[in-house]
Amino acid sequence: MARIVQKYGGTSVGSVERIQHVASRIERAVLAGDEVVVVVSAMGKSTDELVALANQITDTPSKREMDMLLTTGEQVTISLLSMALQARGVTATSLTGWQAGIQTEESHGNARIEAITPDRVETELSEGKVVIVAGFQGISVNGEITTLGRGGSDTTAVALAASLKADRCDIYTDVTGVFTTDPRYVKSARKLHSISYDEMLEMANLGAGVLHPRAVEFAKNYNVPLMVASSMEDIEGTLIEEEVSMEQNLIVRGIAFENDVTKVTVKGLPNRLQTLSRLFTTLSEHHVNVDIIIQNQIDENHINISFSITQSSLKETLAVLQEAQEELQFTDVVFEEELAKVSIVGSGMVSNPGVAAKMFDVLANNDIFVKMVSTSEIKVSVVVQEIDMVLAVEMLHKEFQLAEEAVTV
Amino acid sequence: MARIVQKYGGTSVGSVERIQHVASRIERAVLAGDEVVVVVSAMGKSTDELVALANQITDTPSKREMDMLLTTGEQVTISLLSMALQARGVTATSLTGWQAGIQTEESHGNARIEAITPDRVETELSEGKVVIVAGFQGISVNGEITTLGRGGSDTTAVALAASLKADRCDIYTDVTGVFTTDPRYVKSARKLHSISYDEMLEMANLGAGVLHPRAVEFAKNYNVPLMVASSMEDIEGTLIEEEVSMEQNLIVRGIAFENDVTKVTVKGLPNRLQTLSRLFTTLSEHHVNVDIIIQNQIDENHINISFSITQSSLKETLAVLQEAQEELQFTDVVFEEELAKVSIVGSGMVSNPGVAAKMFDVLANNDIFVKMVSTSEIKVSVVVQEIDMVLAVEMLHKEFQLAEEAVTV
Repeated sequence: MARIVQKYGGTSVGSVERIQHVASRIERAVLAGDEVVVVVSAMGKSTDELVALANQITDTPSKREMDMLLTTGEQVTISLLSMALQARGVTATSLTGWQAGIQTEESHGNARIEAITPDRVETELSEGKVVIVAGFQGISVNGEITTLGRGGSDTTAVALAASLKADRCDIYTDVTGVFTTDPRYVKSARKLHSISYDEMLEMANLGAGVLHPRAVEFAKNYNVPLMVASSMEDIEGTLIEEEVSMEQNLIVRGIAFENDVTKVTVKGLPNRLQTLSRLFTTLSEHHVNVDIIIQNQIDENHINISFSITQSSLKETLAVLQEAQEELQFTDVVFEEELAKVSIVGSGMVSNPGVAAKMFDVLANNDIFVKMVSTSEIKVSVVVQEIDMVLAVEMLHKEFQLAEEAVTV
Repeated sequence: MARIVQKYGGTSVGSVERIQHVASRIERAVLAGDEVVVVVSAMGKSTDELVALANQITDTPSKREMDMLLTTGEQVTISLLSMALQARGVTATSLTGWQAGIQTEESHGNARIEAITPDRVETELSEGKVVIVAGFQGISVNGEITTLGRGGSDTTAVALAASLKADRCDIYTDVTGVFTTDPRYVKSARKLHSISYDEMLEMANLGAGVLHPRAVEFAKNYNVPLMVASSMEDIEGTLIEEEVSMEQNLIVRGIAFENDVTKVTVKGLPNRLQTLSRLFTTLSEHHVNVDIIIQNQIDENHINISFSITQSSLKETLAVLQEAQEELQFTDVVFEEELAKVSIVGSGMVSNPGVAAKMFDVLANNDIFVKMVSTSEIKVSVVVQEIDMVLAVEMLHKEFQLAEEAVTV
């Protein structure tokens, strides 16, 4: 008998029919003898509908009242799923976030889980029930209803799995697992049997829907094995865990990429200790998210700083810089649009210094000019022209032999 | 400064526009310097929609899961109303039933309030906030979400008013108050300035939407002055309290009536001690609700028993009686359909023995034959033919001078 936490997202419980389907999957796990805790999101578009309702009332609803409003979405799903299970003869009970003991900090809209008191969940499990918990929500020490922000239901599932010492946490979603790269762009993309937490974190932008980075971090910290699989099809998913057994020595595990990247270069900044800090503090105060940063020394007294942002934040970025020109003492700003970021990810990289060189070689051989480079222990990212993005991914996918089943390199 | 509990029903908060209107009314009370606690129901048809969703899942949803599902309805309303107040610059906070300390028995679908721990409400009030509480819901000692059943939001409001020692509990609804009789039938029906709890209980069937009997009982037990008024129009409502000051000596306060009454007579029952008890125990075991009961002795050994039921339960009643004929030892059952009940209600009646006689006199003078009679200390009910109902009400309304403003009789 295994103890399993299953999580189903909004699309998987988006209609009465899908809820019935989810109930049938849970029933199968119960019949197999497993103890099952299920975490669910709000049904399909219901959160959007609630947000629209609030916006009809006011343009600036308070975060506290938004939490009060939005948490009803998951409460509807848990009750319906519990009914669906009971109708199949499976004993089940639904619990809101506060009933399940999901304690968060005293913050609304994006609260972090501080502790889980799973007594009630344990009691219900010991009575042979399937326990269905509302994801995305918790309770603060002052009895306030809070929400966990984006990816919140994933985090609820992982945190519950950790506190219940579950054998596994299964994240059921609308993809069948984690791929070597995006199969919509690269036909030969292959689903991975397993991937490490860190690799998963670096790959996170490969389809935002797969798994929220916060949940992966949580799983890594508490060493909870995660399985990402399809809620619709019966196909083996991808296991995310610390020790990647099968493909342990694969240098590159996957290729992540994103378009709509813009490179901004601030020229002629004074070469002083505070320059970097001042520039990026100014940007972050205006909520400009910066990705790659490169610093170039021009002469003894001046540096250029380049950084990448998303296309949509260019206007705001330029306005912020213009306003701060006198304070930051730069001479000029230039920018380049229609760029893309391509990253190779793999924990084997740390002990293989030639990987970045091979990446650059592949790109050069295909006449792809590299605009920026950034590296971490398990990732090398390059910024290229947007029109070269898919070609770069395809070539890298081929050269690093990702389409082939795992082999020891 | 007064402390006031206001309650708004589902129709009054049925749309974003109506919620804004309710917010404007609350704002007015706040500007007048009052401390305000607001109890609201789910928006318009939202409860029906949730029930429909559950019925798509299963024909027999458990009461516990229905409570989990339906309580989301009020939670949506409290958050939206709080946002609407905040948008007007009125500090407000919303509380679910459990946050407001509404403790109920461990029962689903129709739980009774056992206690109210209004600490949180008091704290929020002391911080100058309008407190908006979800009606109809509470929490059991085991942390289960419960609902109070029909009229639940009225009961929440009255119970909160009692525990908060509020100066008044205002029930805002889609009528402008309590009338001497139904104004849809009798043009000269007059709105009452005030009415006693007991009279209100007897008048309860005069428009089921006005106020749930359970809430009136609660108000009577804790001596909470209730005001029933319109949520749409600014008109004085009807005050329900123990001491009816203005119209104290009015013998008859109002005339209640209902149609679809059926009279059933069970003939030739044995004249024994257990006969009545056996008959009505049998009926109640089959959930047949009986209103008026009359017993007639036929001879030394036999009695006839007549009782009134609603038209819709006739079939079931006859089936139950047929099955129990051998046990109950009666000879025959007859019934009469298309009847109506007309009642005069007034606490002054108890000291005026001639009131019933005057009622019979009025009816006889208008050729209205009385089929059954039932009396209480503050009510006389008669069963007449349905076609005579409106005439009976009009004549009684006129003879007891109910269209005129209160005068001492």
